[in-house]
Amino acid sequence: MNPRSAPDRLLSVLAAFDQDHTALSLTDISRRAGLTLTTAHRLVGALTAWGALERDASGTYHVGLRLWEIAALSPRGLALRQLALPYLEDLYEATHENVQLAVRDGHEVVYTEWLSGRSSVGVHIRVGARWPLHVTGVGLVLLAHGTPELQESYCTGPLTSFTPHTVTDPARLRRLLADVRRAGFAVSDRQVTDDALSVASPVRGPGGEVVAAVSVVVPEQGAQVAVLAPAVRVAARGISRALGWRPPGRAACGP
Amino acid sequence: MNPRSAPDRLLSVLAAFDQDHTALSLTDISRRAGLTLTTAHRLVGALTAWGALERDASGTYHVGLRLWEIAALSPRGLALRQLALPYLEDLYEATHENVQLAVRDGHEVVYTEWLSGRSSVGVHIRVGARWPLHVTGVGLVLLAHGTPELQESYCTGPLTSFTPHTVTDPARLRRLLADVRRAGFAVSDRQVTDDALSVASPVRGPGGEVVAAVSVVVPEQGAQVAVLAPAVRVAARGISRALGWRPPGRAACGP
Repeated sequence: MNPRSAPDRLLSVLAAFDQDHTALSLTDISRRAGLTLTTAHRLVGALTAWGALERDASGTYHVGLRLWEIAALSPRGLALRQLALPYLEDLYEATHENVQLAVRDGHEVVYTEWLSGRSSVGVHIRVGARWPLHVTGVGLVLLAHGTPELQESYCTGPLTSFTPHTVTDPARLRRLLADVRRAGFAVSDRQVTDDALSVASPVRGPGGEVVAAVSVVVPEQGAQVAVLAPAVRVAARGISRALGWRPPGRAACGP
Repeated sequence: MNPRSAPDRLLSVLAAFDQDHTALSLTDISRRAGLTLTTAHRLVGALTAWGALERDASGTYHVGLRLWEIAALSPRGLALRQLALPYLEDLYEATHENVQLAVRDGHEVVYTEWLSGRSSVGVHIRVGARWPLHVTGVGLVLLAHGTPELQESYCTGPLTSFTPHTVTDPARLRRLLADVRRAGFAVSDRQVTDDALSVASPVRGPGGEVVAAVSVVVPEQGAQVAVLAPAVRVAARGISRALGWRPPGRAACGP
């Protein structure tokens, strides 16, 4: 196969857009996608005609509404989020703190929902943001419930440090993951920034497999984990039930 | 140009997915995209390798997380929605009714956010859903604030009827649009279903142009428009301010 097949070239135009590059000129796109200006012009034209890109009055390109509509069908993106939203809203109403939904992609978490609370913490995460698994509450949950192979390859890989509190020792991380499985929730205490703490709990699919995680992020100062954890767990279980999960070991009582 | 250029063929694979077709087999995709099985196989492979599609254990394809992440950068999709969400949440907390955010695409509204309220109305709209402009509250707002050319072409086109209350008379629709501009909000009274009413108000960009609309949908029985309209207007103005809009005619007072 051609190392830059036609599909790859077209997709490289879409991949030119990221959180730091949401508005691009044709020249930007050709440079970031590694395409000649002629090829970029042709592909951008096709994507714009279709609605995957939109061109504003100044000639700058943005991601278009039609791509968003199709992406809204993603079961792990908006579809999960839409099903989870009432439970996230309830968690928000109960705590008035920052509430998140996240899924795992490889060695990272991707935030698929973020409801902003009243307290501002020094964390600027937005929908679509990615973080390494070992630093956030949702990441610890998704890592703790990943396959043994995932956990082993993750723990033996480089563990990036963001603050003096980030756990970067493999043995300590393994103990932390065991605690997460035992407790049913994870706490990330100032592992991302110096002032924030998050509490997270797993969302399970029909077969009991962990498919996502829910969390709240609060200022570490005055954070009450014992108060937050039950609320987060109830929300996560509510979403799990909506997905078809049933708690194990509770046999239905006969008449 | 080839009527089915390489970009068009690839995009036709994505377009095979819609709200009624969120999970497709390779055969489904080839049929819906009008491609041979061989071509579909090659393109689906490229899209899956890139992350635009995901294949589950049963071999069925879904829209993938990576497409969703890029689509999250769409200024009229998730970016607007993310900025608007706190105001939509406030409107939800104040009313506990179904709250929506929508933008216009041609002659249709596209719902980009939907918070579900306590009351169930016979309207099943989800994020990404489309409706003709003349039937919903948000559609009436976006049509009323469209260009004269849009309004004229819309009003002289076919006006689909959904209920006996749907306004399908062009002259009546024009009067309704004038009322919407004068009042600052639109009411769709049982125009979509027999039992639902929506109240909508415009969201403006920095230059005063209407870029989106906010609404609540309630059961028509017992709906209090006089109570809902101010709340919807306040939420819409809040989002407008967050977008950089300032109300006209209020000169800053000098010292």
